[in-house]
This record gives sequence, structure tokens and C-alpha cells, in this order.
Amino acid sequence: MRPMADKGVGVTSPEHIRICEPPDEFNLQSGRILGPIDVAYESYGTLSAQKDNVILVCHALSGDAHVAGFNSDGESKPGWWDPMIGPGRALDTDKYYVICTNVLGGCKGTTGPASINPRTGKPFAMRFPVVTVRDMVDLQARLFDALGITELLCVIGGSMGGMQALQWAVSYPDRVRSIIPLSTTGATSPLNIGFNKICRRSIMNDPNWRDGNYYESGEEPVDGLALARMIGHLTFMSDKSMRRKFGRRISGREGIYAFTAQYDVERYLHYNGYNFPRRFDANSYLYLTKALDTFDLAVDFPGGMEEALSLIECRVRFFTFTSDWLYFPEDTEELTATMKKLGKNVEHISVESDYGHDAFLIEYEKFAHKVSEFIGSLGGC
Amino acid sequence: MRPMADKGVGVTSPEHIRICEPPDEFNLQSGRILGPIDVAYESYGTLSAQKDNVILVCHALSGDAHVAGFNSDGESKPGWWDPMIGPGRALDTDKYYVICTNVLGGCKGTTGPASINPRTGKPFAMRFPVVTVRDMVDLQARLFDALGITELLCVIGGSMGGMQALQWAVSYPDRVRSIIPLSTTGATSPLNIGFNKICRRSIMNDPNWRDGNYYESGEEPVDGLALARMIGHLTFMSDKSMRRKFGRRISGREGIYAFTAQYDVERYLHYNGYNFPRRFDANSYLYLTKALDTFDLAVDFPGGMEEALSLIECRVRFFTFTSDWLYFPEDTEELTATMKKLGKNVEHISVESDYGHDAFLIEYEKFAHKVSEFIGSLGGC
Repeated sequence: MRPMADKGVGVTSPEHIRICEPPDEFNLQSGRILGPIDVAYESYGTLSAQKDNVILVCHALSGDAHVAGFNSDGESKPGWWDPMIGPGRALDTDKYYVICTNVLGGCKGTTGPASINPRTGKPFAMRFPVVTVRDMVDLQARLFDALGITELLCVIGGSMGGMQALQWAVSYPDRVRSIIPLSTTGATSPLNIGFNKICRRSIMNDPNWRDGNYYESGEEPVDGLALARMIGHLTFMSDKSMRRKFGRRISGREGIYAFTAQYDVERYLHYNGYNFPRRFDANSYLYLTKALDTFDLAVDFPGGMEEALSLIECRVRFFTFTSDWLYFPEDTEELTATMKKLGKNVEHISVESDYGHDAFLIEYEKFAHKVSEFIGSLGGC
Repeated sequence: MRPMADKGVGVTSPEHIRICEPPDEFNLQSGRILGPIDVAYESYGTLSAQKDNVILVCHALSGDAHVAGFNSDGESKPGWWDPMIGPGRALDTDKYYVICTNVLGGCKGTTGPASINPRTGKPFAMRFPVVTVRDMVDLQARLFDALGITELLCVIGGSMGGMQALQWAVSYPDRVRSIIPLSTTGATSPLNIGFNKICRRSIMNDPNWRDGNYYESGEEPVDGLALARMIGHLTFMSDKSMRRKFGRRISGREGIYAFTAQYDVERYLHYNGYNFPRRFDANSYLYLTKALDTFDLAVDFPGGMEEALSLIECRVRFFTFTSDWLYFPEDTEELTATMKKLGKNVEHISVESDYGHDAFLIEYEKFAHKVSEFIGSLGGC
């Protein structure tokens, strides 16, 4: 599906807004308080006069607000979900106002651990409070307050983005008309927590991490963050896609029986791992994986997941991909069954795919039309 | 099935032998030469006069020769496959002579990177040659030469142990009457190579690793090896078993929204990770994961896997466990199908289990009787 025949959204630019400035403040799920908060976002299309055509796209762990188009003519790659967004695309910018915000705790323009702590004049580092998916969503709601947008036509996202979509439906049932969570869960599994712990450990093991205080040292924990990214990357693929993509191909000048010899899969992980620290902050990775770990829609409900889901009023269309072994489709099946039992308007579309957890960033042709059809069926635009 | 009603093999002690002493030498698959080589092994039961009752147990990545019984009265845990071995157990020491050797490249008595290089008087460290599963098997064959044992009744093992069993059948078709490979593959997958690469990277990232020259520094790469072990451990479990064992339980004095708070799965990984460096050498972990990566029965055969498998003459009974997502049962299905096509005497028993790759070390009651029945059916004892 890439490159697209049409032009997409073209050259775009991020916007920045400061909210929750004193005497206002932002209350975190932990009970701690934060503010002022900078929010970076991008938007595409035109907000209707009734402000009823807003689609919020939520990004995953390593994403950012730059979801479509090019931030400059020289940029080699478009935003991370570009094939989904533009005139005539699934999120049709001729009809909808599409917006994506960098999440709270991120490192691409929204306040996070690399931001300056106004109380000290230095980066927060590990003094930044632990933030949650609910906090990310609450901050997005505050942004929409500032923009005068009261209702969202749809909240859509995969993985951590899907968690945000679900959290929107539970936290703000009167502000959201539909959600499309892809490749996600209602509560992070111990397998995922385990992988996240290992990613954090690999960063914290890096001597350049210095308990998070590396910003002024001139040496960042590149090896640790690269290793964390390799772990992430591996869990985003699938056995089948890797056999196809890499097989057992290997190259090395000293022959294959040497540590210098690298299987193609090793070179791929290395390349992607070491690309990552150029664009991502290690402490932010710690905070966002922690946000994944604490994600549990049911956490504050004595009645558990059923009570949380009972609050949902909007239409829900889940997508899962059969080879995803990080966020198992069974999780979504269970959520769907519970919501159906509660009389909710919910569908689950299982997409046959070999691309594992990353399928929602790859196999657009398998689900994009089912996204546009769903949003088109909501009416009111 | 643990603790066992019967006594098992009781107190056992490792044996040590030096082989391949000059002018003899050991030729590695890489073309390099090694020798002399120390081999540590344990044996249980009595070798028959005809020397026709030998069962070779092959250990996995982090195992060793101490497969059953206690090396001293004070030892808290028996050998790693104790429930399988003893009078009346699956590998019945009243009938069979059961032997297990620490693999080449290991760190529990057999020559490996921590051993003294006779040419320098210092540990080999990363000057140790890359060894392969075929080398491990060749060394076992040399040991049996030294012990005057020409034929093995059965070679059995899980994971890397299963690779050795398969390699025995291919390399020494006239010396082995049956093999029982559990939870294994005929060629390591790119997913596994990816995980192994990440494990090695976590060790090599540790500043105490010092390019492998840590033996005399007084500081071992404990953090790196512990992290590698955590990754391994996580991949040995399954989503289901982890949900049951850990769920989302968490504890922390500062509440759950703090980095000091630890989910139970995190504490488990940490505990097991940091226990490991006490009993395992980091360089050995590098060499053994490299041996896993290079494992491919077909590597030296122009006709590929079919040609390799065509050499097998013995009976084969494979075991896989349904929730194993590290060594997929589909791999074994494919091997079985190919061997059947070639007219080999092969069976594949799929065991329903939630315990993932580790099932062969846990759910003995589900397969032990099918091991003993198979070996009993071989006759000749």
C-alpha cells in the first residue's frame, strides 16, 4: 500500500501548547501534581464548524505526534501511520480533523523526564513522576478543553495507543463516540511486564545512565537503550515473518564459526537498536514502559474489569492480528465477550497476519478499509 | 511428581577425565583444533557386561552433568532432571547405565572459556574457539571411546539437549539405537538467534565483562549475565503459566506508582537472574548461545535437511509441549513429516501443557511414562 498513489497530507508541522499553568495544575493518577505541561501535537484536515469531526490518533511506545506527512521537504520517511491518513485514506482528511499528541512522559515535545523541571531549572530525570495511560488520556482531554473540542468522533490507536483508546471510553464516556483499539489489551500481562522490566534493566545497567542524570554528562546510555529497543523489536515480529525475512542467513569475514559473524537477524536488530537512541530519550523509555506496566482498566474499580467496561457508552471496533504473541488476540476476545454480555456495541475483527504485533504498522491493506467503513458508519459528519 | 516416593539415585559424585591429550587432538567443526580436553560427567546405575544399556542424557543451555541425586548430603536441590532418573523411574537405574556429560564450552568441569589455556597458563576467555552442538556430540563420542562404550541405547535431552540427541543420530547412526529429543528443533530459528544475540549483548554491555578478560579482575559481569538469564527465563515460560503464577500482583512501599514498586513477575526474574551468576560463567553463556545459533543439522549437506535426516538409522520419539513458543512444536512436526517421508521409524508426541519451553523440566507426569515405555520397547537389555 506504500507509496500511496495520492499525495497524503503533504508537509506538516508540529504545534505546541502549554496547559495546566498555575494556578491550574494537573492531577496524576498517583496523587502527584504536575504543571505547567507542554503538549506537542500535529493535526491534519479541517475542524468542522460544529467541531464534530475530530479523530484522535494515539501513538504507541516509541511513536510521537508526527503521524502523517513530512515535517520538511527533506524528510526521508513520512509520519508513522502515514498510509492511514490523508485525502481519501482511511482517516480521510477531506472529511475529518485528525489529531495526534505526543504522550505525557514522552520525549518529542510533550513534557517528560527530559523536560526542564521549573522548580530546579534542570531536567526532571528520575524525579519526574510515574505517569499512567490514564494520565496520558486525561492530558489529551485537557488539551481538547483548551482547543474547545468537547466530543471526539473516534479515538484510534494500536498497542499503547489502543490502551489510550480504551481508557478514553472508560474515563470519558460522554466525550467519545467510538474507539478503535488495535493489538492491545485491557490490562498488561505479566509476560509484557517481564519484557518491559528487562528493557528497563538494560538501560539501568548502562553506566552512562547514571541513575537518570545523564543529560549534562555528554554521554547518553546509548548501549542500554539500543539493547532495550532490540528486545522490543524482537517481540514485535513473529517467528514466521522472521523466517521469511532473515532465515538463517549469515555473513562474516572470518567464516560462520566466529563471534564476528552476524546472522541477518542480528544485524537487523543491531541496526534498529542503535538507530533508536538518536531519536528517543532513555528515561522516557523507562517512564513509558512503566506506564504500560501499570495499565489496567480495572485498577480503581471494586467490581473489576466488568465494572470498568460497563461505563463504556460508545461504539467499539477491536482489531487483532493472528500472529501477535505480545498482545494476544485472546485478550481482546475476552474483552469483547465481556462487553457483549454487558450489552455494549462492540465488534472484534481478527486479521490473518504473519507480522506479529507490528502488523498494524505494516499490513494496512488488510484493515484500513474496515477502519474507514466503521468511521463512515458513525454519521454526523 | 516431586518429591518422589522412592529414594532416587541418592548421593552422587561427578567424575573427571582428560582426553584428546597430545599427540591426540580434537578437531572442531570450525576447523580449529583443541586439546587436551577435560570432561566432567556423572553416571548412575550399572554398566552391563555387554555395555548395551547406556542412556546418554544431554543437558540444555544452563544445565550440567549433575542430572540426578545429590552431590552431597547438604545439597538442597537434586540434579536438574532428578524425577526422571533412579530406580523405577523413567530412566530406570536398576536397568540402565545413565550418563550425562557437561558440554564442551560449559563451565561445570568440561573445558570451556573459563578453563586454563595450556599455551598461556591463563583462562582462554574469548580466545576459546567457537564450538558447536556437533562438537559437543563428537566430544561425547570421544569420551565413550575412552570408556570402551561403542553403542548407546538411547540419547535423550530437551532444548539444546534435544539438538545433541538429533546430532548423535545424524553423526553416529551406527552408534545409537534410539533418540528422544524434547522441545527442540533441527535448525535454530531467527527468533531464537535474536534472543540469544540480545543475551550476549547484555553480557558484553557490562563494563565488567572487559572483552571477556574478567577472570583476574575480581569483578565479574554479574549484571549483564543476570539480565541475560532474565531474558532466557522469560522465554522459557508461557503467557498462561505467568498469568497463573504472577498475575498482576505488585508490592512496593511507596505505592504502585513508583519505580521501586515491583510486580511479582519482576521480582521473580530479578531473583532468578541474580542467582545465576553464582553458578555460571558469563563467557560460557556467550559460547553456548553461539552454539545454539550455529545449530543446523543440514549445514554441511548440499541436499539440506532431507539429506541430513536420511542418515538416521535409529528409532526416534519426539516430544513437544503445546505452549512452547521458543521452540515451536511446528518445527518438530515438520522434522517428523520429513523423516516419515524418508521411511524412518519416528513418532512425535505432542503434550498439552501451559508451561512453555520449560515444560520438560516441570510436567514429568505428562511424559515420563512415555519415555520409559519407549526405552523399554527397544529390547536388548
